[in-house]
Amino acid sequence: MTRRSAVPPPVTRVVDEAGAWLPRRLGEVETVLRELLDGHGPALAADAASTLAAGGKRLRPLLVLLCAGEGGGEAAVCAGAAVELVHMASLVHDDVLDDAPLRRGRPTVAASSGRGRATAAGDLLFSRAFALLAGNAQATAVELLSEASVSLALGELAQRRDAHLISIPAERYLERCRLKTASLFECACLIGRAAPNVSGAGTEEAASGELRAFGSEIGLAFQLLDDVLDVSGPPERTGKARGTDLLDGTVTLPLILAAERDPGLRAAELRGLDPASAEVLCDRIAATGALKEVRARALRMVSEAKGRLVQPAFDEEARRLLGLVADGVVERYA
Amino acid sequence: MTRRSAVPPPVTRVVDEAGAWLPRRLGEVETVLRELLDGHGPALAADAASTLAAGGKRLRPLLVLLCAGEGGGEAAVCAGAAVELVHMASLVHDDVLDDAPLRRGRPTVAASSGRGRATAAGDLLFSRAFALLAGNAQATAVELLSEASVSLALGELAQRRDAHLISIPAERYLERCRLKTASLFECACLIGRAAPNVSGAGTEEAASGELRAFGSEIGLAFQLLDDVLDVSGPPERTGKARGTDLLDGTVTLPLILAAERDPGLRAAELRGLDPASAEVLCDRIAATGALKEVRARALRMVSEAKGRLVQPAFDEEARRLLGLVADGVVERYA
Repeated sequence: MTRRSAVPPPVTRVVDEAGAWLPRRLGEVETVLRELLDGHGPALAADAASTLAAGGKRLRPLLVLLCAGEGGGEAAVCAGAAVELVHMASLVHDDVLDDAPLRRGRPTVAASSGRGRATAAGDLLFSRAFALLAGNAQATAVELLSEASVSLALGELAQRRDAHLISIPAERYLERCRLKTASLFECACLIGRAAPNVSGAGTEEAASGELRAFGSEIGLAFQLLDDVLDVSGPPERTGKARGTDLLDGTVTLPLILAAERDPGLRAAELRGLDPASAEVLCDRIAATGALKEVRARALRMVSEAKGRLVQPAFDEEARRLLGLVADGVVERYA
Repeated sequence: MTRRSAVPPPVTRVVDEAGAWLPRRLGEVETVLRELLDGHGPALAADAASTLAAGGKRLRPLLVLLCAGEGGGEAAVCAGAAVELVHMASLVHDDVLDDAPLRRGRPTVAASSGRGRATAAGDLLFSRAFALLAGNAQATAVELLSEASVSLALGELAQRRDAHLISIPAERYLERCRLKTASLFECACLIGRAAPNVSGAGTEEAASGELRAFGSEIGLAFQLLDDVLDVSGPPERTGKARGTDLLDGTVTLPLILAAERDPGLRAAELRGLDPASAEVLCDRIAATGALKEVRARALRMVSEAKGRLVQPAFDEEARRLLGLVADGVVERYA
């Protein structure tokens, strides 16, 4: 295994291989985000800036822009920024829920500004997303994004409900990930396709179905690999301690599969776990081979997702670039 | 002073005096709310049901329906439910921020289900509001509601920023209340007026301006009287302990004005206040006469608000019924 930098090469490759329009639009998304957040004065800027600066890969705006294509224009830029704002809002609230100290190696908003401000800051990011779309009169986009937001919240509630339960079926975990992660990837793809000036011709309905599945599958693969990384580390690359999910009581696929292979794990008690015991538990999960299996599942999902991008609904460039994004989801942890 | 029941007679009077369409539409709003919340399975239903059951006066949906008038139809019902969902979401999150044990005499979602579930439950109510409007293709409504939601979040952030600061200017407090409370009253009025089939004819623009001011003024009066009640109690009517705001570090107009009259109050330390000392502080605020002054201000605002409902933009029935709602905002604490 080679170590990679925070920005995974395959995503960089997408930007390099696309026409000049893509990096330009990505830059416009950044500008919209920056203006919205700076527009709220020094009070919010400090909180939001830390979230913004911690960055992330902007995978969701990238999907929006690619699915809209070169003709997507300003509507696609707004939609890309709106999807990212909802993503940021959900991260800020997740960190409130989990009392998380670090995200991407930096203090969370909750840790640096307190739970109160973080809850309100998340609400603001969330509201701003809808105000942005509404200001651009994108009715379908509002519908898609509000549905995805409902799913995110339901996924969060499901995660609370299933906290500390090691013996849940894998399917229940996957359904939670569909709600909590895949729904916003799916939304990013569809919202891009729904931008005005995006031509879909007669194949539009079939293409949307395939695109929905594509987004959902790479979103699910993304979450699976995130969950592997929580167990495998290393912390200097993930920006958080190994076993953070376990410490929060969040049971993910690596532990579910590991407990099927090593029955002793089923009796593990996650409540009151300390960081050292969490690391020991991570090693025990890894020893069962569960991480390899989860990685393999994620790879299969990505492969299926790529197979959906058939012609004539997707032209050669769209297939190639979206395929690179899909690869990026997996390769970031290779 | 006579004591009144939880449902203030003037609001009941509005419903009695309006045509049969108003109670019917209010019932439809309840049905929409109930269906949305029950639709999320037993997990959310418990949380949301407690919020729903605690009820409240449905002042905001009432304003939406009255401003839309009899012709407002289903669009007005959806808008009324959406505004109430955003209000409920903000209450659920407020209680997370304040670690509040009680609201309207019942345990808060945060107290009964934990902060994590309450944060997610608030996000769900919020997302549902937008999904409801988007599903009804109400572009203007989405714009108005998302702007109001931005204001709510900014108001919450301003409240955090000003926590424990007794010597802030009254204007800064009023600006915070405009964001945190008045904006949603204003939105309720405008969103009703924006419903399809609501005829405004040539006077529409002027009427919207007046309606915006009407909503804002009664919202502000509502908040002022809420803040008086926090100091005056009695708890058996408010459903929470006297001085709850003080215990949260929230400085409101009664204290700001009282500190101008009784300079010793300026040095009061709100951090680490206990319930008994909070009650003593409430008595001291009341002794300055500040409560009377705040009540008088609120009454003036309501009177100004009612003066805005001029013909021909508002017909006789609309003026009479909206006037009763405005009176209700004040009389609930008479």
